[in-house]
Order: sequence, then C-alpha cells, then structure tokens
Amino acid sequence: MKILARAAALSALFLSTAAIAQTAPDVAWDITADLTTEIGARPAGSEQEAKARDWAVKRLTALGFKNVRVEPFTVTGFVRGAETAELTAPYPHKLHVTALGYSAPTPKGGLKAELVYFPNLDALKAAPEGSLKGKIAFIDHAMTRTQDGSSYGPYGAARRQGPGIAASKGASGVVIRSIGTDMHRNPHTGATSWPAGTAAIPAGAVSLPDAELIARIARTGKPMTMTLVLEGKAQADMPSGNVIAELPGRDPSLPPILIACHLDSWDLSTGAFDDAAGCGIITAAALRAQAKGQPLRTIRVLWAGAEEIGVFGGAAYARANAGQPHALAMESDFGADRVWRVRFNLSPANKPLRDKLTAALAPLGIAAGAGKANGGADVTAIIAAQKLAVIDLDQDGTRYFDLHHTPDDTLDKIDRKQLEQNVQAWTVVLEIVANEPGPISPE
Amino acid sequence: MKILARAAALSALFLSTAAIAQTAPDVAWDITADLTTEIGARPAGSEQEAKARDWAVKRLTALGFKNVRVEPFTVTGFVRGAETAELTAPYPHKLHVTALGYSAPTPKGGLKAELVYFPNLDALKAAPEGSLKGKIAFIDHAMTRTQDGSSYGPYGAARRQGPGIAASKGASGVVIRSIGTDMHRNPHTGATSWPAGTAAIPAGAVSLPDAELIARIARTGKPMTMTLVLEGKAQADMPSGNVIAELPGRDPSLPPILIACHLDSWDLSTGAFDDAAGCGIITAAALRAQAKGQPLRTIRVLWAGAEEIGVFGGAAYARANAGQPHALAMESDFGADRVWRVRFNLSPANKPLRDKLTAALAPLGIAAGAGKANGGADVTAIIAAQKLAVIDLDQDGTRYFDLHHTPDDTLDKIDRKQLEQNVQAWTVVLEIVANEPGPISPE
Repeated sequence: MKILARAAALSALFLSTAAIAQTAPDVAWDITADLTTEIGARPAGSEQEAKARDWAVKRLTALGFKNVRVEPFTVTGFVRGAETAELTAPYPHKLHVTALGYSAPTPKGGLKAELVYFPNLDALKAAPEGSLKGKIAFIDHAMTRTQDGSSYGPYGAARRQGPGIAASKGASGVVIRSIGTDMHRNPHTGATSWPAGTAAIPAGAVSLPDAELIARIARTGKPMTMTLVLEGKAQADMPSGNVIAELPGRDPSLPPILIACHLDSWDLSTGAFDDAAGCGIITAAALRAQAKGQPLRTIRVLWAGAEEIGVFGGAAYARANAGQPHALAMESDFGADRVWRVRFNLSPANKPLRDKLTAALAPLGIAAGAGKANGGADVTAIIAAQKLAVIDLDQDGTRYFDLHHTPDDTLDKIDRKQLEQNVQAWTVVLEIVANEPGPISPE
Repeated sequence: MKILARAAALSALFLSTAAIAQTAPDVAWDITADLTTEIGARPAGSEQEAKARDWAVKRLTALGFKNVRVEPFTVTGFVRGAETAELTAPYPHKLHVTALGYSAPTPKGGLKAELVYFPNLDALKAAPEGSLKGKIAFIDHAMTRTQDGSSYGPYGAARRQGPGIAASKGASGVVIRSIGTDMHRNPHTGATSWPAGTAAIPAGAVSLPDAELIARIARTGKPMTMTLVLEGKAQADMPSGNVIAELPGRDPSLPPILIACHLDSWDLSTGAFDDAAGCGIITAAALRAQAKGQPLRTIRVLWAGAEEIGVFGGAAYARANAGQPHALAMESDFGADRVWRVRFNLSPANKPLRDKLTAALAPLGIAAGAGKANGGADVTAIIAAQKLAVIDLDQDGTRYFDLHHTPDDTLDKIDRKQLEQNVQAWTVVLEIVANEPGPISPE
C-alpha cells in the first residue's frame, strides 16, 4: 500500500513542480500552502491559533528573520457549536446556516418562531419597536461583486448592525442572507456586535441559495416558521498574540517600514485567501527586497492575531508599540488576486517618492488611483495613533466575497500567477520605501 | 412589517418579470421553480417524494394532461443520518463529508482508523487481499469537466465500485474524493453498491477541496488517521411511484412517444438541475407541440420515481407497461444547459425522419453527432425490453458535475435562456415524431 501511495505521490509532486516551473523556492506559496495544510483553521483564541503562532515563529526564523517574537494578549473569542436551521412552514426545507461571531446560543431544543422577512436593513430599521417580540427577523440584501470590494461597507451593515437592531426591537433571533457574492450552499460567517444595553440573541447567516429560497417563499405572502439551532457562544479571556519579525536595515536610527497580514482565520475553512496568502505575500516580498542588498530601513513584519473577531491584534500592536516610531504602514488582507491599483497617503513633500513608486509599479499593470490609502484592519490603530504614511496595493476583489468567511476559503482558490504578481508589486514598493533616506509622512 | 415585506416582494416580482420579459406562462420554469420551492428535496421512498407525486398529479392535471396516474412500487431507500469526518493526524482538520447511498452506519462514537491513500481505483484494486483490515481506504481520482459528461463513466467507478472493492479487501470504511468537477466544500453523494457476499461498510465522499488537502498530506508520507461518523442507513420497503400523464394523439392505435424525466432528487438539495428542470422541459415541450394542433400520436410523459438510488422507477415502468407498445423513448436528465447535439437510434428506413429532425434542429445550434442515442436512465429498461427507437438531445454538461448530487443543485443555477432553448429543441422533435405516421424503429 505505502509503496503504491508514495509512487503516486512522487509522480504527482513531479507533475505539479513541472507545471509551475518554479526555479527558486516560492516563499509566498509555501507559507500559504503549509499554514493551511499543517495548521488549517485557526480562530482567534483557539489552540489552533496558538499552534499557528508557534509555526509562524519557526517559519520566520528559518527564513532568516531577526527579533522574531510573540506579543501576547487576551480576547473574548467565539466558540462554534452545533448549528442547523429548518424552515418548517409553509414548506419544509433544511437550510445551510452558520452562526455569526458573538451570536448568543439558542435555547435547548432550538428556537422555534415565526420568520419575518425584511428585504434590507432599512426595512428592519423601520419596524416598530417591540414588533419583533418572539420572532426571528430575516434580513435580505442585494450585494453584488465589485473590483474594489466597496460593496462590503454598505451591505455588510446587515451583519454588523442588523442583529443588534433586531434585538433592540425584541426579536428572539436573527438570520441574514450571507454577506457574499457566490451562489453556493456555504454560509458566510463574520462578527456582529451588540449595542450597549442590548442583550445578544442567536444570530446566523444562511447561504445565498437558501436566502433566495426564503425570499421566494416570502413573496407568496404565506407565514413562515423556522427552527433555529445555534449553539456557539462567546468565551472570555482566550489567549491570542501577534507574531513580529524583522529584517534589520542598515540604519537602525530610521523608523521601520511596517507590513502586516493576519495569522488567525475563521473556523470554517483553512483561511487561504483570508489571510494566509497575505502573510505569504508580505513575507516573500520582504525577503526579495533584502536579497538585492540590505535596505536602509528595517522592514518589520506583523502577523496579527485575532483580526477576524474584532481586530484585537491591531489594537494590541498599537498599544505595545506606542513608544516606537514607524515610517509607513501597509497590509495585505484582501486575498491573493492581482494588484490592480496603488493608492497613497503621502505628504506633498514625498511627491518624488510617490512618482518613483507609481512608475515602478506601472509595468506590473498597476495604476495609481484616486482616493487616499487607508491601510488594512491590523494597521489602522497604529496609523491613527502615530499619523503614519500609508500605501495600499489594492487587490482585485471581484471574487473575494465568494470565498470570504466561508468553508470555501481553501488553498485551491489561490492562483499562483496572481500570487506572484502580488509578491512582485510588494517587492517593488519595499525596495523603494525601505531605501528612502528622507522623512516619509502622510498628507 | 407585513406591508413592508409585501411592498418589497411586489417590487422584486415586478423587476424579475420585467427582466425576463416573458409574455406567456413559462411552464418549464414554473415546474422547476415550484417543485424545488414547494417540495424541495424529495429522496426516493421519503414522505417528500410522496408529496412530490401528489404535487405532480395536481400540476399535470392543471396543465391539461389526461390519464394522469401514479404507478406505485416499493424500494429499499437510504435514510441519511449525522455525518462528520475529521482528520486527526498528522494535522487535525474537519472535513466536509456526506454518506454515499447504501453506506453502512459507523459504530457508536464513530469509526477511528488509519486512512490509506490510493491515487485512483486501479491502485485500490492492486492492494493485496486483507491489507486494508481495520483501515479506511481513501480513493482519489482526476475527473475533469467534459461537455458530453463522458468522464462520469470512468471516474464515477470510484464511487460505484470502489467501496465494494475496499470492503472485499477488509476495509472498515471507505472515503472517496467526490465524483465532481467543482472546487467547493460541498461533497457529492450518489449510490454505491456491494458485490454479492460483501457486507456493506461505511462509505462517504469528501468535497474536492478536502480531497486535495488529503492528497497533499498523503504526499508527505506521514501516517493519517480519521474519525468518521456516517449514521445513514438503508431502509427496506419504502413507498415510491411513477407519475404518468398523456396528451392523447389523433390516432390511439399508434404506439405513443414516451418522454421521461425523474421526479425524485437526492436529499442534499432541492434537485433543480437533477432533475426538476428535466420534468419542466419535457412537459413544456409536450404542451407546446400540442398547441400547434393535436398530434397524430399520443405523447406520454413519465416523471419517474426513485431514479437516484438505482433507477427503480424505470424498471417498474418497464414491468408495468410491458404489454403496451411504444414508438420511441427520450429523456431529459442532464441539467438545463443548452442542447448542443442530437443523436439517434433510428432504422435506415427512418432516414427521412432523421434528416427532417436534423434540419429542424440546426437553427437552434444543435448538430447531429456520431454515436448511437441511448436514452436516459429511466427509459433504459423499456428501450431494452421493447427494442425502441431513441433520440438523445444532449445537453451541455460542462458544469453539470459541479452541481450533481450536491447541496448546490438549487434553482439559482438554472439559466432561463438555456432552459428555453431546451424546450424549443424538444418541441421541434416532438412536433415531428408525434406526427410521424409510419413505423419508427431502431437500427
């Protein structure tokens, strides 16, 4: 048996290597593949996230990074339990559901209640106070795909605010159409939050085909009932941490370039797109930038913990590193499809730097875009605290919300050619900014 | 609340109607939408399948069909239970698994065993007798998409024969890479069978991303262990039945044209592609063919029961209708994407008929293909028993095995333009063959 399996394995390896025709180690791919394979799902506060930190320290050390360390903190996490949803009237259907982060657990035996359909968040907001007492609110929406991911803001509000609004109107539970753009039976999770003074209620998301079914039935006007089981719950004081590593620059007196990704993932998948690939991209680019000669400035890599449930790692980083000046912050946390646009938050005095970056990125199919760079979630706090310059290498998000927070976010979704273009774009930027001798400042 | 929901519903209905710009009732779409919405999943032998028969009788009668009736039979069905799979070593991963039809249930607490990787069915066949004792066999394969669906034969053997082979070599369980071409975390079910003298063992399929993960880990050579829970089991003497209806022809002495689909679906989805749409297509086409004037021959519609677990409906039909001569048999059971090819099994004497059909289909983008038509699963028995002429309207199967037997086989997958092309192709054929006065015979 083992001989047969190994012969096949060797042959498969050979084919895959030949097909890719890599001549050098592919650090970005290896980090993405190995983290998703050897660790897999690594939700904030979990044992798997702790294993991921150990793995990260080992990997970054092996790759030649210096000052590799973990900065620990604790979080209130979310531990998933059994979850099912059944439409019981007017037509019985088993639905594919998942709890939102910070959902309250349903009562023993499940929550059985009338399901009230709202076509969007505004309709829910217009519902009279108390009108949802004892009922489950269903929030639909019409999110579609965008290259820049901008639909996540307005439509994502159904997940971020919807459950709190339903709870404040007396609902016993809330179910939303997943915040996503695919049409697969894989619900999208994600954290919700509860306004002060509003107790958490069970809150879940159904897959988009299930939401379409509910909308279709709602249009008949027949009353709907649901049995909802969501046994997951919040858990306080779980251990998390940021992994930090450096490639020291020639001049330690200059503030470092901070580049970030997040190490944790949601629990439903191995988190390849979100955000193992981001860690792969920034780390590979830092090494490539160094390979052409030690840069002037230190490049500091932050693999943040506990991003998914509330950007706890980013906040912890800003607190723990408040005394350390930084030159510039960047993050890769939007998948691994090609970078199509660069945006800046650089002072007018940095126009030569900006022009140099724009020119260097153009051959990669990346054009300078209007609007100010804002960095990613994990660098938001340090950018705000220190008023840092920012560069955004915007990835193509057309299919990002097909995969985001679903079981489908797996290694097979990574397109190696596009991953490589990301590494090239980041390398170009790091080579320039890490060798910039003058001050780098925001607008 | 209700006012708001209804206003939105009306507005959504209006938009959808305007967008489609249908001027007449769309029978094919309505059957597909209503069967999947009002009944949903309808596995062989279940209460839902019985409800679907009642629904079918009502709908076919309302549409003006005559002699609408149910021909009952009983089947050994498969009743799904809880199902989970976890890779426990060398790296813990929760996998997405589903039981194959006729899987045996796992022991209480689940089956915990070494997982042995086989790259394909031939490798499993080469395993020494007894070498799998107490182990779980994993069967991988390399199925890719084909327009004509021809890859289902060879690669589907991993599901149809693989479990029996593993059991015969002493395996305690078997898991296969789903027989499919998508890359979503939705496993594909489907029936397996056990050779005489071989006791059933637990048999499941994991989604393709999960199979890729297992293959990747297998290539490391590290021993793998799995905990498998598959609580579904076979159940004897479940009620099923065929629904039969007719559009009587002008000459009742001529043998009818038999057109088929199947009414049952797998339990994981609402069975839109497989095969609600098939029932919609043949039924809509029969009505359209009649609308141009009553045809010479009777068109008999067969909505077969219990196809998925072993084509029981087709066998029952052939038995129950052995005394009734038929002219020709056809089936629609390959989704709802466009018909791209027509194939025939017609005698040389029917060359004029064949030429007429070929010419009439050409404007729809349908070319006559080489190879003999063989009909669909539910007409196989009657074709063999009575040596019937056959016409195959071959649908584009490029994405069929993305959806086949998965939770993803839902109404949103139906492309109304392609569905309409199917109805047009079937109408063209029925108008011609149901008005053919002379004998229609196979090669």
